[in-house]
Amino acid sequence: MCQLLAMNANTPADITFSFEGFRKRAGITDKHSDGFGIAFFEGKGVRVFRDDKAAAFSPIADLIKNYKIKSPNVIAHIRQATEGEVSIVNTHPFIREIWGETFVFAHNGTVKNISKATHNFYQSVGETDSEEVFCYILNVLKERFKEKPSDQDLFDAIVEITSKLAENGVLNFILSNGNWMVARCATKLHYVIRRYPFCKAKRDDGEIIDFSKYNDKTDKYVIITTVPLTENEPWIQMKNGGYAFFKDGEKLQEIVGDLPEVYHI
Amino acid sequence: MCQLLAMNANTPADITFSFEGFRKRAGITDKHSDGFGIAFFEGKGVRVFRDDKAAAFSPIADLIKNYKIKSPNVIAHIRQATEGEVSIVNTHPFIREIWGETFVFAHNGTVKNISKATHNFYQSVGETDSEEVFCYILNVLKERFKEKPSDQDLFDAIVEITSKLAENGVLNFILSNGNWMVARCATKLHYVIRRYPFCKAKRDDGEIIDFSKYNDKTDKYVIITTVPLTENEPWIQMKNGGYAFFKDGEKLQEIVGDLPEVYHI
Repeated sequence: MCQLLAMNANTPADITFSFEGFRKRAGITDKHSDGFGIAFFEGKGVRVFRDDKAAAFSPIADLIKNYKIKSPNVIAHIRQATEGEVSIVNTHPFIREIWGETFVFAHNGTVKNISKATHNFYQSVGETDSEEVFCYILNVLKERFKEKPSDQDLFDAIVEITSKLAENGVLNFILSNGNWMVARCATKLHYVIRRYPFCKAKRDDGEIIDFSKYNDKTDKYVIITTVPLTENEPWIQMKNGGYAFFKDGEKLQEIVGDLPEVYHI
Repeated sequence: MCQLLAMNANTPADITFSFEGFRKRAGITDKHSDGFGIAFFEGKGVRVFRDDKAAAFSPIADLIKNYKIKSPNVIAHIRQATEGEVSIVNTHPFIREIWGETFVFAHNGTVKNISKATHNFYQSVGETDSEEVFCYILNVLKERFKEKPSDQDLFDAIVEITSKLAENGVLNFILSNGNWMVARCATKLHYVIRRYPFCKAKRDDGEIIDFSKYNDKTDKYVIITTVPLTENEPWIQMKNGGYAFFKDGEKLQEIVGDLPEVYHI
């Protein structure tokens, strides 16, 4: 299995504190050591870093720590390979363009017997089930919506498509176009919303930060991750079949989940 | 205008010596300082680094120098912005998936009045003419070939499509799928093929390397760049309308160019 980390904020923010705790799980505090990837949206563009080395020891992850890129939407993934060899091509997050926007997707779990879309406009380059899931979602969206639909229509379609896919496996994922972010839980996913008044937080490796020193009153952001990164924040545990839609650091909509095995729209 | 650097090799190779000379042109020996990007193919996967800072001074370029990623196909670009603001979204190389492969494209020049393809599967995310050119090429290819054609059919199609596009501007570009590499010259593009017996080379900033110390007898690679990087190697200057197709560090085919303004197939 793998682990996920993501941030959706109302202003470009520095994810270093969270990423530093997260990447220790890739070789130090846990064993998700089969490569990592992190994508930072900057405007409509994406800066992505990948390595097939463990994030805890990767010089590329060290650069990210020191460079402190500010971004309102970030998706990161540390991999423990189940399907597909350890290589750059199988490293999340996966990226594709649709309707002139960049979609970024990271997945935790394994999905079997992935349906074939009528059109195979998007095709996997690597061997993971995760990339195949992502391509399937995009193929169905592209076929259904010739042009970019409203956010609500898109969210509804994503819930419908991915709930069906989830009947054949474990589908925790995070998806973003650099504006909104969708989180889906199957087995394990948590989020916390940080906003004024900002508190101190203690990372699970003991590191403490006082967010009030680094944020303005108007700053808002959500952190989504597989296992909570701090001990003293109100992390919300999502449930099986749960979806949360975030924009500008706020939760726009939530489908609570915990449905009988699978959520049907 | 911008500058291009690329390598096609028969084995994963380290481009650091060439990249170090190249990136000095982004702020030290020349003024192409509006961001840079470099894509390394590793198998079917691509590791890409981008920065909106000048490559000469970018910590990301420093990482590339120190990390010494080995790759058989590399495309790099230093930008001097003409169309589109200085931002990650406008930073070459541009990347898209087609037929389950990753295509990487970098361009030097400006093209006006870019045709619209019948289908707009691929759409620009940023504002550059370069990304629009790339999307147009891919849209026409995708429409013409439902599945991946032979290399020869693909090369012929690329020549046809881009020769027409070049009627409306300056189109120096490099394109690769991680296996083959196509270079097209409009105004300025050079290449050199390095193979046994390897010689010493002196970079234009005075740095000297003895390639025989770093290469085996069977190693072969071509370096393509806007302006030659070394003083004592047999660089070949391409001509307007010229194309060269490389694979495994060898030139498979060349269309010499210097046609009356534009090459017509």
